Amino acid sequence: MKTAILANVIRGETIESIHRGHLIAIDGDGKHVLTLGSPDSVTFFRSACKPFQAIPFITSGACEALGYSDEEVALACASHSGEPRHVRIAQLMLERAGLNEAHLRCGAHLPFNEKEAERMQRAGEHPNQLHNNCSGKHAAMLAFAKHIDADLPTYEAGENPVQQAILETITLFSELPADQIKTGVDGCAAPNFALPLSAMAKSFLNLIAPPDGFPADVRNACARIVSAMTSFPELIGGVERLDTMLMQAADGKIISKVGADGVWLCGVLPGEKFPTGLAIALKIEDGDDRRARPVVAVELLKRFGVLSSDDLPELSPMAIKNRRGDLVGTIEATV
Amino acid sequence: MKTAILANVIRGETIESIHRGHLIAIDGDGKHVLTLGSPDSVTFFRSACKPFQAIPFITSGACEALGYSDEEVALACASHSGEPRHVRIAQLMLERAGLNEAHLRCGAHLPFNEKEAERMQRAGEHPNQLHNNCSGKHAAMLAFAKHIDADLPTYEAGENPVQQAILETITLFSELPADQIKTGVDGCAAPNFALPLSAMAKSFLNLIAPPDGFPADVRNACARIVSAMTSFPELIGGVERLDTMLMQAADGKIISKVGADGVWLCGVLPGEKFPTGLAIALKIEDGDDRRARPVVAVELLKRFGVLSSDDLPELSPMAIKNRRGDLVGTIEATV
Repeated sequence: MKTAILANVIRGETIESIHRGHLIAIDGDGKHVLTLGSPDSVTFFRSACKPFQAIPFITSGACEALGYSDEEVALACASHSGEPRHVRIAQLMLERAGLNEAHLRCGAHLPFNEKEAERMQRAGEHPNQLHNNCSGKHAAMLAFAKHIDADLPTYEAGENPVQQAILETITLFSELPADQIKTGVDGCAAPNFALPLSAMAKSFLNLIAPPDGFPADVRNACARIVSAMTSFPELIGGVERLDTMLMQAADGKIISKVGADGVWLCGVLPGEKFPTGLAIALKIEDGDDRRARPVVAVELLKRFGVLSSDDLPELSPMAIKNRRGDLVGTIEATV
Repeated sequence: MKTAILANVIRGETIESIHRGHLIAIDGDGKHVLTLGSPDSVTFFRSACKPFQAIPFITSGACEALGYSDEEVALACASHSGEPRHVRIAQLMLERAGLNEAHLRCGAHLPFNEKEAERMQRAGEHPNQLHNNCSGKHAAMLAFAKHIDADLPTYEAGENPVQQAILETITLFSELPADQIKTGVDGCAAPNFALPLSAMAKSFLNLIAPPDGFPADVRNACARIVSAMTSFPELIGGVERLDTMLMQAADGKIISKVGADGVWLCGVLPGEKFPTGLAIALKIEDGDDRRARPVVAVELLKRFGVLSSDDLPELSPMAIKNRRGDLVGTIEATV
């Protein structure tokens, strides 16, 4: 399978490590604006599919009936950092549905926010499921399950109507039949979806610029999600997290969503540069989340004129420091 | 540059991510027992060169004059986990030379041992330089500097006689002239060395079976280091660390040393299977330390008959679990 070198890890003057991967950027006219590697290679969507997992929560009427706010819709699409406000909103989402933390089935982990994780450990606190980066997604799944009277204790099982509706949503947006979408279990125990990277890009294009053929309620749900994500970028990730940094720097022009194991999806909303919108799908082949993914994402958005050349200098290139804090190398995008 | 797929990350039934790299295994007769990818590709030796950084500490007479034990020689070659005994031995190493933690220039980080790191955080303790995984190496450098009356505050600078002696040692063992070895600064602030993976393998072969042409004191230092490493595998890494697990499972038949950014060197001591010894050098191209490196290392040692097929089942393959602890995938070597 063809791969492209996307980033170099450089120590002194020597390339120490190399990150490869695949990339596709398509506009609303179907034009392949950029492809690298094998854009039709199949991998898991991971958390980058959260906006689609939130669609039936909205189209079912659960979101409106229970009075969810835009902040809560944003958190449903988030891989949040477990900062206090993220945890508070996830809790509110459950309370609106008459539920609590014990109904979640996502498992617990320390907050991604390192300062908060360290604070909790130093304070002798232990994380609960609300700190899980997927707690907003799971709270929305539970609210949806409650609203349609689905079985609550198995809301994350593949056979549950909640997950069936989500699979249908993935097929609608990716334009792939369900039998071409393989499933697996995500880190948060919910079903996840393996499909070609190009179909993930197509899904994001259909999210930011839904075609006339989509049902009106789906088109409205897309608008609500895009609006919620662009209005509250600090809820989609958190402090010093890639999605939040990119969306804040792009100032309302993009939605950005990372997925574990080196996945990044981005929708550039229709505007001056891309009248029909642009969707970018990136997979770092080796699953890297912390070195190649951020520098490649920033480089692409600069190349496409979405970010200016002086935005996010800390990721372009990224510094490698030793344990004493001295600069000893850089991580540089090669795209 | 040619690369080989070395490990697959599999979720459900789908390959989610791929780790590539380079590999060479050579025996004492110079035979290439196995090569994959581009074994002559250049990368940094990182911590896998610690045994060579310890050689002049021994050949200079510092080790004997100051009465260092085999445990201390082992820790000089270690990337230890910052467990209490590791920290205690590093402190003793400094005390023997009349020095203390403040003389170290390696910087501080939380112990690699997660339980110890969590315990320290929960107890409100902060790491010092003794917890740095390289503190044994730095303590040996300082003792060597003291013994030869080199400038102590700059013992880690490239111009210091300590580092010049180490560079000479690297040229001796790698059989490469100094002008073909590029340097960079390691995570612990000491100089590190970029050279072809094949030359790293050669270095390990010269360590486990030093040729007659090597000076007698160097040959004796090799024997001391190999003996110390095989006698105290728990000091080379720590609980649940790859080097320790492999050396304990191989029961004295190998020395194993990881280096950051996906490097692993292994010397199979001359014996029944490999009468002239075998050296293995592995580089995961993307720098992976936690997924491909361990499963590939275990698979290779099983293939070479050094480990038996039922050794270290937890790494062959490695389980991927979700946040609730359910098995959702595996990481499998493809070599």
